[in-house]
Amino acid sequence: MAGNSFGDLFRITTFGESHGKAIGVIVDGCPSNIEIDEEFIQSELDKRKPGQSKITTQRKESDTAQILSGVFEGKSTGTPISIVIPNEDQRSKDYSHIADKYRPSHADYTYQMKYGIRDYRGGGRSSARETAARVAAGAIAKLFLQQQGIEIFAHVSGVGQIEAPNVDSSNLKSLLETRESNIARCADPATANEMIDFIDNTIRKNGDTVGGRISAIVRGVPAGLGEPVFDRLHAELGKAMLSINAVHGFEYGSGFEGSRMRGSEHNDIFTTENEKVVTKTNFSGGIQGGISNGMDITFKVAFKAVATIMRDQETLNQAGEETTISGKGRHDPCVVPRAVVIVEAMAALVIADQLLKQRAYSNI
Amino acid sequence: MAGNSFGDLFRITTFGESHGKAIGVIVDGCPSNIEIDEEFIQSELDKRKPGQSKITTQRKESDTAQILSGVFEGKSTGTPISIVIPNEDQRSKDYSHIADKYRPSHADYTYQMKYGIRDYRGGGRSSARETAARVAAGAIAKLFLQQQGIEIFAHVSGVGQIEAPNVDSSNLKSLLETRESNIARCADPATANEMIDFIDNTIRKNGDTVGGRISAIVRGVPAGLGEPVFDRLHAELGKAMLSINAVHGFEYGSGFEGSRMRGSEHNDIFTTENEKVVTKTNFSGGIQGGISNGMDITFKVAFKAVATIMRDQETLNQAGEETTISGKGRHDPCVVPRAVVIVEAMAALVIADQLLKQRAYSNI
Amino acid sequence: MAGNSFGDLFRITTFGESHGKAIGVIVDGCPSNIEIDEEFIQSELDKRKPGQSKITTQRKESDTAQILSGVFEGKSTGTPISIVIPNEDQRSKDYSHIADKYRPSHADYTYQMKYGIRDYRGGGRSSARETAARVAAGAIAKLFLQQQGIEIFAHVSGVGQIEAPNVDSSNLKSLLETRESNIARCADPATANEMIDFIDNTIRKNGDTVGGRISAIVRGVPAGLGEPVFDRLHAELGKAMLSINAVHGFEYGSGFEGSRMRGSEHNDIFTTENEKVVTKTNFSGGIQGGISNGMDITFKVAFKAVATIMRDQETLNQAGEETTISGKGRHDPCVVPRAVVIVEAMAALVIADQLLKQRAYSNI
Amino acid sequence: MAGNSFGDLFRITTFGESHGKAIGVIVDGCPSNIEIDEEFIQSELDKRKPGQSKITTQRKESDTAQILSGVFEGKSTGTPISIVIPNEDQRSKDYSHIADKYRPSHADYTYQMKYGIRDYRGGGRSSARETAARVAAGAIAKLFLQQQGIEIFAHVSGVGQIEAPNVDSSNLKSLLETRESNIARCADPATANEMIDFIDNTIRKNGDTVGGRISAIVRGVPAGLGEPVFDRLHAELGKAMLSINAVHGFEYGSGFEGSRMRGSEHNDIFTTENEKVVTKTNFSGGIQGGISNGMDITFKVAFKAVATIMRDQETLNQAGEETTISGKGRHDPCVVPRAVVIVEAMAALVIADQLLKQRAYSNI
Repeated sequence: MAGNSFGDLFRITTFGESHGKAIGVIVDGCPSNIEIDEEFIQSELDKRKPGQSKITTQRKESDTAQILSGVFEGKSTGTPISIVIPNEDQRSKDYSHIADKYRPSHADYTYQMKYGIRDYRGGGRSSARETAARVAAGAIAKLFLQQQGIEIFAHVSGVGQIEAPNVDSSNLKSLLETRESNIARCADPATANEMIDFIDNTIRKNGDTVGGRISAIVRGVPAGLGEPVFDRLHAELGKAMLSINAVHGFEYGSGFEGSRMRGSEHNDIFTTENEKVVTKTNFSGGIQGGISNGMDITFKVAFKAVATIMRDQETLNQAGEETTISGKGRHDPCVVPRAVVIVEAMAALVIADQLLKQRAYSNI
Repeated sequence: MAGNSFGDLFRITTFGESHGKAIGVIVDGCPSNIEIDEEFIQSELDKRKPGQSKITTQRKESDTAQILSGVFEGKSTGTPISIVIPNEDQRSKDYSHIADKYRPSHADYTYQMKYGIRDYRGGGRSSARETAARVAAGAIAKLFLQQQGIEIFAHVSGVGQIEAPNVDSSNLKSLLETRESNIARCADPATANEMIDFIDNTIRKNGDTVGGRISAIVRGVPAGLGEPVFDRLHAELGKAMLSINAVHGFEYGSGFEGSRMRGSEHNDIFTTENEKVVTKTNFSGGIQGGISNGMDITFKVAFKAVATIMRDQETLNQAGEETTISGKGRHDPCVVPRAVVIVEAMAALVIADQLLKQRAYSNI
Repeated sequence: MAGNSFGDLFRITTFGESHGKAIGVIVDGCPSNIEIDEEFIQSELDKRKPGQSKITTQRKESDTAQILSGVFEGKSTGTPISIVIPNEDQRSKDYSHIADKYRPSHADYTYQMKYGIRDYRGGGRSSARETAARVAAGAIAKLFLQQQGIEIFAHVSGVGQIEAPNVDSSNLKSLLETRESNIARCADPATANEMIDFIDNTIRKNGDTVGGRISAIVRGVPAGLGEPVFDRLHAELGKAMLSINAVHGFEYGSGFEGSRMRGSEHNDIFTTENEKVVTKTNFSGGIQGGISNGMDITFKVAFKAVATIMRDQETLNQAGEETTISGKGRHDPCVVPRAVVIVEAMAALVIADQLLKQRAYSNI
Repeated sequence: MAGNSFGDLFRITTFGESHGKAIGVIVDGCPSNIEIDEEFIQSELDKRKPGQSKITTQRKESDTAQILSGVFEGKSTGTPISIVIPNEDQRSKDYSHIADKYRPSHADYTYQMKYGIRDYRGGGRSSARETAARVAAGAIAKLFLQQQGIEIFAHVSGVGQIEAPNVDSSNLKSLLETRESNIARCADPATANEMIDFIDNTIRKNGDTVGGRISAIVRGVPAGLGEPVFDRLHAELGKAMLSINAVHGFEYGSGFEGSRMRGSEHNDIFTTENEKVVTKTNFSGGIQGGISNGMDITFKVAFKAVATIMRDQETLNQAGEETTISGKGRHDPCVVPRAVVIVEAMAALVIADQLLKQRAYSNI
């Protein structure tokens, strides 16, 4: 209710501020008997952590996850799995230059208005650092989904005006390798180079930032997931993605472009392939009437540019007086390469939750 | 949990199939002492009902709402408000031509997979008729929000490739009048004519359908609404919109286009206007860190083309055999003019719910 | 959240005031493919309806249920089942004698304090008439549980100071027959006669009312139901029972008496019976650590005397002035015989909900 | 949903096993600007911790709470407050004597049936150690309620057959002092001595255990709390209490005894006292129609005897074979003195949650 939980049956609750003692998450509702591979969890966190490459923030933090409960002899027990990620960088810095100023397009002003108080150390709870907790929880959801034969893949499909071409998605494991071979996390190598050059030479060198887009595929989802009418599968995915910092848009299947098409073009014709019902096209993005139909689930997420820029900006202080705020420290010129694993984590959490619901309700 | 409820504190639960006895809704959590104007509720329903104009379905249904509870002497009592809308068109028709066939891009196949059973009469629960219940509930939310000085306005900003220019939104009441003066429900009269001509002459006459876009503004929302981190205000709006039949995309503020911009362009600079904190631009769409900042909340919703077309299409039957399905009856060539009031209703429900949460938590 | 829903996965939402147009319920989350026997639903409602015998209210109301949705060709479809029960007795009576007075031990004062408004017609929403909606929903839950081999039985085990002896519960169907053979709904015929005589001759003739107790058994529940730590099976049962009008106490297994015992007496020793794990005693009431262990689930519910008595009582009016209120009309001298089926309905709803949760989470 | 959360608006989620690394809790929904007095939280934990006196377990554990988030400069920020309590006693002991045996009246068997796995170290999640997390969270709720002028008091009113007389509750602070002056935590000194003697000399010396009862008063609750019809205030209190380990019964106001009374005796007559509406008696226990009426809220909770006894008991092992289990280690002969603060904590959590709901809905 207070907004720090996500999911109904497979539910996570995150906590922690960017410069407090720790951040973390409780996963409540993970079924028992799932092998909890701690190395996998850590490898997922490493894909999100700062300091990975020249096009992300240079801040170094190891983001080491500690499991406090819910796992016994390497397996989930069905009780809450709690994970804590200590903040290494919590030394008392001097925040006097921002403590009473509202950083433009940050959450400083709105937190002040909502709570009458704000933890100004590095953004407090509004910092994207909170998403590390989601990645850890998402890793557990992925371990559950792997047992069910479900794969999730996302990559950076756009940065600024640069747009990647459609990639051949027949083999997601191979796509993942290509993605991880470059620091832009784009599965098209040529576009990746273009993105890296643009972010490094045009954006970072000018103390600026730029937005981007992440495209995702979920494969192996059985038909039947999603709870009409309000909890349609794509509505849950949309909420999940829109809850990630900096996201301004979500579309699935044909998306916004689909709204320009005619029904005669857009309808996905049913046929059979290896005795399985499939559709000839997949403008539906694997979801019809809010329920998965067994085809690939596809969606795209739009991230705005990071608000912290290395330039002077006009703003107001808490007294409502005009002032200037300067960018300093280490920032992310483009956040999408680090956000790929967050998108995957949130998708995993949605699918895990819907899978448990379908288990509950299925009565065929 | 089973998906037919929306909202936490201001919560609605809808029920009913398109060709059953009735559809309806329970509004649980409407505060007491709201004047429940039944004529207003009916006028909202009339904006969604079929048979309004030559560019919507010719099916006639009056969609008359009956309030069964929760209102005493014209005011809400704080107890559940239940509204029933009888189905007039529930006569036992011959559905044998579709009963065992999966209509392309409809929910026939997925409902069968999910429930092992489907009510094939006119789509059953997956029919957009269900949204009439949302409109009735949304009308009650609007009556509550009116008391709080909050206005909601939506209009058709795109049909197929046709795109309306930005409209002057300084006076929402006047915009509403312009919108209601044309059957496309577009607030730009010239574009409206173009849309009407296109839908009537190019789409309808060819037995085809086309998608479109609806843009919305919510004005007068105080700063502080939205519950980080998962229940960000725009995440709730996004889920609400994506839960409407045929919606394939949602964006707020700068949206997808914003992901192509740089931070130095996109940041909204704070300033004051009449002693009130405002931002010089509003790429944030009135929401920062998931919390309203007092500026106009703006968003856009993409609707795919209606799947029912007046043409023959290949498909499968329940036995998995190839067959042909023919379009017959009366259909909507373009659904967005009737969907404007649904978008407004869902927005009203989100804002009402968040307003109650903010009342609960505010401790300043 | 606003309190008119019960259950998570098998969820009901009730609506309606005692003298409005109708009361009713939406059952959201009933699995598909359950045979919905409307005669059974009606027979359950008939056990609760007024006017059954000389020891209940003489008010006559037929309480006829109409299903509006969620059932197709006699089976549940997995979509919301809505049931409406029209109020026959809604004619505009003269309530001027109570409209501005607070009836002692009724909800008049608290509804006024909470909502600032009250529907004074027959108690409005606080009337026990609301429980008819629960009985209808509970009947659907029972139909689901019957498929699973689960039986629920309750009877009146105490009225005032009269206490029934323990009954032989080896055959619940036979106990049910005995219970239905007398108007006290007590499964011990001799005690039933004593209760009837006491209620009719001592209580009703003096215009008074009296409380009582209902004991219940749920048989056939598999081991594993209940969600620790907060949603223990008996905590859910307790909440369900305490939500029924006039209930002042709940105990399960050994209950309050068990708190007087020693561990060496109270511990239930495990053994096997027909290769099944059982306990030699059942002080645990079929629940250990909040989870069913496969033994009979047993609990008892205490109902206070009905507050409406046929006597003059002192009270206050809305202005805070002292006044006198007179009892008139037809009242229930003892409500427990009519409440037996409500207790069973609420138990069925709890078990159905927990059963669906266990289906979701079980990963053995 | 998975059962480890309690409350809707003021919501807690607990985690941790008795012999894992730590237990803890997230409090989500605590309003901002509450002074978080860490010493008070610790003093509450000290009332529950083991090793306090000769009539509780001799196990020593300091139960030191660490706040990881949600508090800034001594005040709540409105973001999740997370508290971790490390387990000091987590050394790898030899559990081979119980690892495959089902302890009678413990949760060993049911956890095995539910999850297919169990953490046998000291009861794992089913251990009452989990309630330390509730006490920490309850302390935060109490700090919030203190701001609102609400007091909560509980004491041991019965042990085995020993029953304390009614105590003069006009001054709760003085009662609290009396209670804390004896190790039985009974507010009647003479009865306290009787209880201590009985527990120490009759129960503990015989390696046995005994149950007891805790009575509670909540004072200063404004009229209007509680959400009919299912979330009646006493139904929420009942669920809260029944969710505590070993609780077998709950009653409020007149309770079970009230079910033996007549309406003419039981009805609470309204009158005024210092211009405030009060009732002459309080059989309603401060709650009418499920809503607080401003009078003292009173309830009683029954605890069964602790299942761990220092004696040999017959039982089964996981293979279903008969075996014997021996009691060893340090156990609680009577748990109620340590449970007083748990009852208070759960009551505080209920009232805090209902208070926030009433803030949300109140529209007078």
